[in-house]
Amino acid sequence: MVKRYLELRSLEEALTLLTTAFAAPRRTEKVPVMQSVGRVVAEPVYAKYSVPEVNLSAMDGIAVRSRDTLGASDQNPVTLDHCARVNTGNIIPPEFDAVIMIEDVWESGSHFQVRRAAVPWQHVRPAGEDIKENKLVLPRGHLIRPFDIGALVTYGITSIEVLAVNVGIIPTGSELVPLGVRPGPGQVVESNTVMAQVFLSQMGAHCTRLPIVHDDPDLIRDALRSAVRDNDLVIISAGSSAGTRDFTESVIRSIGELLFHGVAVKPGKPMMLGRVEGKPVLGLPGYPLAAQSVLREFAAPLLESWGFAPAPRYPVTARLAQALTSDPGFDEFVPLFVGCIGDTLYGTPHGKGGFAQMATVKANGYTHIPAPVEGYEAGTELTVFLTTDPGSIERTLILTGTLDPALEELAGLAHDEGLYIHATNPGNTAGFLALGNNTCHASPLVLPARSPLKTYTSLIKNPDDRELAFIHIATIEMGIASRDGLNVTDLANARFINTRKGTPSRMVLDTLLAAEGIDPLELNGYLQEVHDSPAVAVAVRNGFADAGICTSSIASASGLQFIPVAHADYELAVQRDLLTDPRIGMLITLIRSPAYHALLMKSGGYSTETTGMIRHLSTDSILTESPLPAINPESPQG
Amino acid sequence: MVKRYLELRSLEEALTLLTTAFAAPRRTEKVPVMQSVGRVVAEPVYAKYSVPEVNLSAMDGIAVRSRDTLGASDQNPVTLDHCARVNTGNIIPPEFDAVIMIEDVWESGSHFQVRRAAVPWQHVRPAGEDIKENKLVLPRGHLIRPFDIGALVTYGITSIEVLAVNVGIIPTGSELVPLGVRPGPGQVVESNTVMAQVFLSQMGAHCTRLPIVHDDPDLIRDALRSAVRDNDLVIISAGSSAGTRDFTESVIRSIGELLFHGVAVKPGKPMMLGRVEGKPVLGLPGYPLAAQSVLREFAAPLLESWGFAPAPRYPVTARLAQALTSDPGFDEFVPLFVGCIGDTLYGTPHGKGGFAQMATVKANGYTHIPAPVEGYEAGTELTVFLTTDPGSIERTLILTGTLDPALEELAGLAHDEGLYIHATNPGNTAGFLALGNNTCHASPLVLPARSPLKTYTSLIKNPDDRELAFIHIATIEMGIASRDGLNVTDLANARFINTRKGTPSRMVLDTLLAAEGIDPLELNGYLQEVHDSPAVAVAVRNGFADAGICTSSIASASGLQFIPVAHADYELAVQRDLLTDPRIGMLITLIRSPAYHALLMKSGGYSTETTGMIRHLSTDSILTESPLPAINPESPQG
Repeated sequence: MVKRYLELRSLEEALTLLTTAFAAPRRTEKVPVMQSVGRVVAEPVYAKYSVPEVNLSAMDGIAVRSRDTLGASDQNPVTLDHCARVNTGNIIPPEFDAVIMIEDVWESGSHFQVRRAAVPWQHVRPAGEDIKENKLVLPRGHLIRPFDIGALVTYGITSIEVLAVNVGIIPTGSELVPLGVRPGPGQVVESNTVMAQVFLSQMGAHCTRLPIVHDDPDLIRDALRSAVRDNDLVIISAGSSAGTRDFTESVIRSIGELLFHGVAVKPGKPMMLGRVEGKPVLGLPGYPLAAQSVLREFAAPLLESWGFAPAPRYPVTARLAQALTSDPGFDEFVPLFVGCIGDTLYGTPHGKGGFAQMATVKANGYTHIPAPVEGYEAGTELTVFLTTDPGSIERTLILTGTLDPALEELAGLAHDEGLYIHATNPGNTAGFLALGNNTCHASPLVLPARSPLKTYTSLIKNPDDRELAFIHIATIEMGIASRDGLNVTDLANARFINTRKGTPSRMVLDTLLAAEGIDPLELNGYLQEVHDSPAVAVAVRNGFADAGICTSSIASASGLQFIPVAHADYELAVQRDLLTDPRIGMLITLIRSPAYHALLMKSGGYSTETTGMIRHLSTDSILTESPLPAINPESPQG
Repeated sequence: MVKRYLELRSLEEALTLLTTAFAAPRRTEKVPVMQSVGRVVAEPVYAKYSVPEVNLSAMDGIAVRSRDTLGASDQNPVTLDHCARVNTGNIIPPEFDAVIMIEDVWESGSHFQVRRAAVPWQHVRPAGEDIKENKLVLPRGHLIRPFDIGALVTYGITSIEVLAVNVGIIPTGSELVPLGVRPGPGQVVESNTVMAQVFLSQMGAHCTRLPIVHDDPDLIRDALRSAVRDNDLVIISAGSSAGTRDFTESVIRSIGELLFHGVAVKPGKPMMLGRVEGKPVLGLPGYPLAAQSVLREFAAPLLESWGFAPAPRYPVTARLAQALTSDPGFDEFVPLFVGCIGDTLYGTPHGKGGFAQMATVKANGYTHIPAPVEGYEAGTELTVFLTTDPGSIERTLILTGTLDPALEELAGLAHDEGLYIHATNPGNTAGFLALGNNTCHASPLVLPARSPLKTYTSLIKNPDDRELAFIHIATIEMGIASRDGLNVTDLANARFINTRKGTPSRMVLDTLLAAEGIDPLELNGYLQEVHDSPAVAVAVRNGFADAGICTSSIASASGLQFIPVAHADYELAVQRDLLTDPRIGMLITLIRSPAYHALLMKSGGYSTETTGMIRHLSTDSILTESPLPAINPESPQG
């Protein structure tokens, strides 16, 4: 283990080697100007002609030779023999060098008289005012933006020489199936190569994704040789197994030079760099988040060192919503979701494993923890690089608690109104905790039906002096999901799947077993716990278990039989003072809207009699019913 | 005039009307996942299957039924009848629910023995750990990013329903010529429609640029009718003349409703909004920068209100490098270039006219001056929205002074090294002033050849206690440019074109006339001044004048005859303490490089004997020669 660590290159060493060991390919291509947005100018672009090409009048008036007006005054008006009537934007004939405003001109017969001398070039928009012929429009290295195109077209430029680079991407691994093929057990879609292609194409690279190569050194060698011949950079996407990586390493050694294998970067440690025929060969790790690190922190800087524009990095300062540990000695890159609570940006880490791609999908940024750091306390201010429009942050509500399809439907309606919902699913208890720590706007909670609110207070870790309001989203039908329609009396002979303590499914099960007088430990599988209700449905669907407790909508989405046995209230807990926040107000309006009612009815398994009712949890835990009128979801009040 | 102003809609009124008067078209289309980057999800995307689909081992060891291990201890080892050897990543057979690390397992014959109970699900990567079947991957409204594609592909998603919108763009104006056609005098390329297409396409709109329509109400009406039929939004790009705008207004009135004509926004005042068959018709002003304002501040928010992702706006706080005036009553949008001098971001306004597109090409951001504000003092802190990667700012040197093609060549070399040059051309005096005010890194100056540096000090407005160094870029050949090879003795009979006082061309001319004993006012055209040397070449090339003084390289670029008469030194003035700045160091290295020498030789008109020499201007104005060795441009020292 120690030996391995000693072999790892630091981020800085690896980057320095990568960006200095290879000559820039200096490949360019000519593209039509309308297709040049996002590309980098390879040869300076000059104006084909001056704009405007001739002198134009900036006023309505007469064009004159300024020297003819010398000495003109009220006492000594000058009658001009030679001048021309012009309006704003008209061409000034070449013999004239000034314009006198029509208000300052007296017509006398067919002649014009002026009473003040014209300064040369007054009220003239001279030829070349915007740009002069042959002048530089775009320097080499300029990243072309949409509004640059207007200027280019105006200046007569129809095509541009831009930087180009050919990148060959080789997927290796016998476990890979191509895009669009459903993987069997133990197989995965070749997603890392697809991601590499999309990511590097955004920088202007021409990416060729080559056919999948199985774990055979000879096949890998042939593919690599051919890719190096046709490309300026080759990315070889290693399988996730150590065996595949070893093949890649030995193939690079056999036809070129291995510069390093392994970087002190997480995720991304198994990265490799080789040189074959003077060209870089980048070994991409198999775990998707590791592949992302290597693409963003190594492949992009390599192209940048060749003149390509880096993907924009927009840093913000955010406070950590929870502690974040880090391996000292490793530069770590951690996906985060940044949200704004009050005036403070909070960043919530989204898992550090290299495996879970949902972490980056749900995140809107990432942070870089330098190698010496062992971790940060909750509340530490960090720099987060956003992967989304910063403006979206203030339009986003952060919901932490228990997710249910009912919330997904609500989020869909909210998105249509420009209100984004960022929801995470750590469960009821963690949701309450986040509400107490002020690191979420609201907590969606699945709670035993019709319970007095005071029973919830035991769940609240930091009730301090805050007051909570509970907005009723819907009543959820819960019951026994099975492939074959098992009911309570069949459970004794079935393999059951349970969920963790404190989860709604567990609470329903325990209540049910007590009512039926069944000893929990006699239930085959009572000790087999999965995370939540959707995990129950997967376990039953896959035959891992025969039955479990979940919600009606989840059972139905998994195509399972369902016997209802109980109800739960799906509530949105929020601090009372946030009820006046327009975003929470919008959410309440949507919860009460006929459109939302219709969506819940369509999906089934919900009842909405008290949807939109707000209850207040006072500090002394006394239940107060909302003074709001009863909700009639058929009325068009939403 | 007052009447007109009363009719103008405020920015806020116009935006409110625009974003509430039209129903969202709710058009969607299915695109392959690899082409979906930058698009907005129209229908929620769910995982086709769980990932991983089955339980996988997270360790090398044995897969067991946890209940079989109950009670195992050192004193009471348990021999397992039923278990399976698994390695990291292997599938765990469905009957097992835990993995015991191989280090904690003892082999006894064909059996495994364990000495500690396994907790259910220990060292198991459960099915659905990344995502569970049918779970939400992307909500409606999500802007798809490159790394999202990896997740989508992994989860079996090959195409996505995204928001779509059809935008028809009609260019009107008899003065327009199509893209790629060289405009005659008074004509312009239809660049605003091209810009609109490129800009809105970036947001995911399908733009159809329709054929140019001449200034004829019947033709405009037919084009508008047909465009409204086929599109969700029609943009009608008005010519810059008032007549064209009036046609557009009357056509909208004749087949629909004109909601307003004129907004209190600069540039962008002549904007129009109409409604035809319930669809928005946006009248785009003719001036390019006005068209940009309207596209960015109105068309983009309209699409945003329909669910499209806004172009990202990345705000930074910058200090104004110079005062900025504004029309009270108008919301103004001003292009700025933001640069970093020391630790401070400075924003330099880049012209406020609607005409000059180079203003936005050279700018890297813009600021919004609210209607009530009359202007800002130099030094005021403003919010600037960047149009480039913020990271590019610290890689950019700001040069203010007199530009020459020699600097463009240098900037090209610098770009290849990742060093960006932002150069503006207000002339020697303004360059010195910027250096004194610390709002540029260095000033390129064209100065009379071989003059002692102390003669420059009269040009320095704020010499205070700073010391300047002068880096010699090249010696520039200056002379008489003409179409027919005129020399000094021919000038008496020629029409001459002069430049402003203090410009290098003017200094050379005055010295020349004095030496030849010619009275300046006897020179036909001495009083006709243009901005600088390139403007002289344009005037002579276009026949506006017969001769003028410019540099050899500029004359040659304009295809003019050239008689050399003098030399000028092209110097880069910089504060002495900035000589240690690595970016200035890089620039000096490039100035001294053989590659730069070769470029200057190739372009002609320069001599480089003293290129790279550094002279110091002490506070007591005594010339000090640089102790550096003489430069030999043939040696590979660069």
